[in-house]
Order: sequence, then structure tokens, then C-alpha cells
Amino acid sequence: MFSFKDCQEIINKRLEAIRLPENPKNLYEPIRYVISLGGKRIRPALVLMACNMFSDKVENAINPAIAVELLHNFTLLHDDIMDQSDLRRNKPTVHKKWNSNIAILSGDAMMIKAYEFLFSSDPDILKDILLVFNKTALEICEGQQYDMDFESESVVSVESYLKMIELKTAVLLAASLKMGAICGKSNAADADLLYSFGKNLGIAFQLQDDLLDVYGDTELIGKQTGNDIVANKKTFLLLTALNLVKGEKQKQLKYWLENGNAEKDKKIKNVKTFFDELKIKEKTEKEILKYYKIALQSLESIKCDKNRKIPIYQFTEELMQRKK
Amino acid sequence: MFSFKDCQEIINKRLEAIRLPENPKNLYEPIRYVISLGGKRIRPALVLMACNMFSDKVENAINPAIAVELLHNFTLLHDDIMDQSDLRRNKPTVHKKWNSNIAILSGDAMMIKAYEFLFSSDPDILKDILLVFNKTALEICEGQQYDMDFESESVVSVESYLKMIELKTAVLLAASLKMGAICGKSNAADADLLYSFGKNLGIAFQLQDDLLDVYGDTELIGKQTGNDIVANKKTFLLLTALNLVKGEKQKQLKYWLENGNAEKDKKIKNVKTFFDELKIKEKTEKEILKYYKIALQSLESIKCDKNRKIPIYQFTEELMQRKK
Repeated sequence: MFSFKDCQEIINKRLEAIRLPENPKNLYEPIRYVISLGGKRIRPALVLMACNMFSDKVENAINPAIAVELLHNFTLLHDDIMDQSDLRRNKPTVHKKWNSNIAILSGDAMMIKAYEFLFSSDPDILKDILLVFNKTALEICEGQQYDMDFESESVVSVESYLKMIELKTAVLLAASLKMGAICGKSNAADADLLYSFGKNLGIAFQLQDDLLDVYGDTELIGKQTGNDIVANKKTFLLLTALNLVKGEKQKQLKYWLENGNAEKDKKIKNVKTFFDELKIKEKTEKEILKYYKIALQSLESIKCDKNRKIPIYQFTEELMQRKK
Repeated sequence: MFSFKDCQEIINKRLEAIRLPENPKNLYEPIRYVISLGGKRIRPALVLMACNMFSDKVENAINPAIAVELLHNFTLLHDDIMDQSDLRRNKPTVHKKWNSNIAILSGDAMMIKAYEFLFSSDPDILKDILLVFNKTALEICEGQQYDMDFESESVVSVESYLKMIELKTAVLLAASLKMGAICGKSNAADADLLYSFGKNLGIAFQLQDDLLDVYGDTELIGKQTGNDIVANKKTFLLLTALNLVKGEKQKQLKYWLENGNAEKDKKIKNVKTFFDELKIKEKTEKEILKYYKIALQSLESIKCDKNRKIPIYQFTEELMQRKK
């Protein structure tokens, strides 16, 4: 059985072996750069681990796994242009290091490369893999569009937010697992259960991300908490707070949100006080647990040798126990 | 046998029947908009016509044809952002009508949609179709990158320019024909001959475009000629002129190219005088003819019922006799 770490290593080795043409330099150099930035390789590792639940031939899942990682990095590359992010994995983003045009085009090329790996999948399962991958790629675009739309919308429901993170983040984890299961020749029911596991785990993961931004351990995170508060980011925490707060308190909270001149630390402190009073931390933890439980139920229901589930259980625990 | 016009109609009907989700509006509305802008549908029509050379079942080629048209429109959408073009088919470009972020993301989604149609191809030929399509998509990115690179390079060889237009324009015509041939279950040699025909025709077509910009009939074109001259665009004409011009004349030509304050009409008139002296029109026509002849030789060599080639011959003649 391959552990998460084993799978990470397999993926990194394969990624390092990718040979891209030399020219045009401005097209391929950014792709090499993005791949070299690393990352946890969670999604492709999940493809391999899911395959390994049903089959010893993990090599059957490597090409689809690489496709998933390239798709993921392509979305990050284009998202970084749209969000005007300067840093990714503590290094300059492509549009900063080069320019936006190069970032758009090398992103496009990276996406096309992702399909190239996908097409090298085992012909028996090619069609099934293609459908899952493509549906998911489109959903990720939808999620990113909702996320951008929310920025300018005055009212966003918690329900819409949950749908957005499902599309933007969770479905790719889900699809990675399902694609792995297909590569391992699982039955359709088990592949769908893995999809459900991944989707719910993904939502729990993103909610935890929201939570850690406000209540995380500053030292462990290695950066200040409260960035989402400063940016008025419509996270699960803020949207839940806005739902609950009434009357005079509502006015006060809105004052802090709308006051563009507020000192960063003061704003964080004040908004956090509202969160504390409204028990937002506890409510978020409850929500995380809800999705985590559904995820675990799906995982439990999968009909495969119990021992084969151990690596996924270990990975899941580590993921949800993270403090940063 | 289906004529070019028949094929256009089939394509337009199928494009009109595409149903995209309502939401997120900002993701799907731009795609609907781009499709509704029309265009000559040359590439998808070529897919159908090539298929029809070998088979009566043109319907087998419709999904790949739609994929090709969506790929083409996706590249235009992203190119328009990169080139900061305000108009496309006389209507505002997506990044002008909406914004750059929406143009990037809806372009991505359009590309993914293209693959969706591709995946609906006949399973027997799916793998072959995928390979041609993907190789071509990547080459188009390479072509666009070279084109952008050339803008800031002081010296560009005619050879590099020809390679660039091959990648940016010609390979998609070539691939459309080859994909059509595959859909029509042609043999590999004939599919490759159609590729060669399309590639050489595409280069001839682009060189003709360069020529018409300077020597076209203003009334027929419906716009002023000489736009490429004003923009110092490194076309076949300019690069050939720069190769040939020597001594004092070289200095004079460079003066007009580098003089940012020159009046438009004066600049066009002067640069055109250099072109005339250097017989650039004749040299370009000779080059066009060279590629056109190779294209026709390839078409002639294809082993299929001669009558089945008639629509392609008719289309080719019309294309090369255009005056605008």
C-alpha cells in the first residue's frame, strides 16, 4: 500500500521528468516555473491513493494524476491574474514575474498539456476519465466566477457561499478520487462514494481554512491572522455573522466592514469581538464536523479491503487536524 | 456532396442548438455572445467537407467540427485581451463589453466546452482525433507567443515569420481537414495529404491577408488599407523589404518606421513607395503562389473519387480569389 508520502514522491518524480520544448521561451518557461514551485500535490496523490484502494497497479493512474495537477496549477495561474495576487507559494506569480499576457497564454498551454496527459490514460477507461475531468474543469471555472461575482454583491447567502466553495475547491478533490477509483477499475458505486467523500472533505477543508484565517495560531501559520477580515472577504464566518447580527449591533459591524480607513489591527480585533459574541467559531466548527462526518460515512461505505483504506484515513486525519 | 455553404449551415444550426447553463451569467453569457457574433465558420466547415470526401456520414464529423470552432473562438477571445483589441467582427470584444477577468475565465470555459464536444466523437476514432486536436491547440499558443515576441524584437527573419503564421493560423486549417478525414475513415496517407493541403493553403491565405492590407481595394475591404504599415506590423511585406533595402534607402525606410509622429497617410504613402520600388507586391504574390501550388498538389494526390473533391476545390478558389 502506498502512503500519501509515497504518492507525493511518485508524483514529484513524474513532474520533474516532464520535458517541455525550449521555445518559445516565454510560453514554456512559466510552465516549468509553476511546476518547480512545488506544493503538496494533494490532488494527484489522491488519484494514486484512490487507485491503490482497488488495484496494485498504481502506475495506471499516473497520467490522469499529472493531468489533475496541471489542471489545478492552470487554474491557480489564471486565478492569480484575476485576483491580482503577487505571490504564490512565497514566490512571485507568473503575471508578476513575466506579465499578464504571458500568464494568460502559458496558462492556456498548461491546460492543453493537462489534456495531453489525460489522453495517455488506459484506453479502457479513457472515456470515463475524460467525462469526470471535463465536468470538473468547467465547475472550477463556475466556482471562480461565483467567487468574483460575490466580491461586488452586497448580499451573499451562506448557501451560495457553500455552493461556491464546493465548485471552486471541493469538486477537484472529489474528481481526483473518482478518477483514481476508475483507474483502479472499481465499481461505479464505490467511485461515486469516493467522489462524495472528496467533495464533503473538500468543503470541510475550505471551511477550516476560513476558520484558521481568523482563529489560527499566528506562529504556526507564519503570518498574521485576520487577512480575510481586513479584505472584507465573504467567508463562512462573516456571512454567518451577518445573518445572525441584528439591530444596533448590525450597524456597528457594518461600520467596521465599510470603514476603509480603519487601522488593520483595530478592525480585526473589533470584527473578531462580534464573531466571539455570536459564537461564530463554534458554529463554524459544527459545520466543519457536519461535512467531515458525511465524508467519513462515504469512505466507510466503500466496499474494499479495509486495510486498503488505511492510507486515505491517515491522510484525512492529518488534513483535518492541521493548525495552519 | 455538401458544398461549403451547406456545411456552414449545418455548423450554424448546431452552434445555435448549444445550450449552456444560465448561471453564473458572467461565465456563460460571454460564450453565447461570442458564438452569436458569427463568422465564416471556415474551420468547422472544412472538417465536414473533408469527412465528406471519404464518407456520406457527415454527421460523424459534427462534434469534432464544433470543437474546432470553439477552440478557434477561444483563441480569438484570449488573443483579443493580449492584443488589446476593442472590436471583433465589428462588435465589442468580450474584455471590452465585460472585463479582462471575465474574458480570461469565459475563454477557459469555452476551451473546456470544446473538449466536451471532442469527447463526443465516435469512440473508434476518438484517440486519433484527440491527438491532432491537442497538438494543434498547443501549436496555436506557440504561434501567438512568437507573434507577441516579434513585437519587441528588432530583427525578425522572414523564415521565423513564416513559421509563426504556420503555427498561429495554418495548422488549425490543416488539423480541421485532417480531423474531418479521420471522421470519414480515410487512410492515414490521405489524411496527411489533407493536412499538408490545409497548412500550405493557410500560409498562402495569411500572406494574402498581409498583401491585401497594403494593396487591397479600399472600397471592397470597407476600411482603409495600410493599417499594418501604421502599426509597424512585421508582416511578410515589411520583413522582405527590410531584407532587400540597403544603404541610404535603408535609413530612409527606418526613418518612416521609427518616426512615431508621422502622419498616418504620409507614412503609408512613403512606406508603400519603398515597397513598390522593391517589387514587394510581386514578391509576395510569388510566395503566395508557391504555397498555393504545394497545397493544390497535395489535394490532387489524395486518392478519392474526383467528384468528391469538387466542393473543396470550389472553396479553395473562392478563398484565394478574394479581394478583401
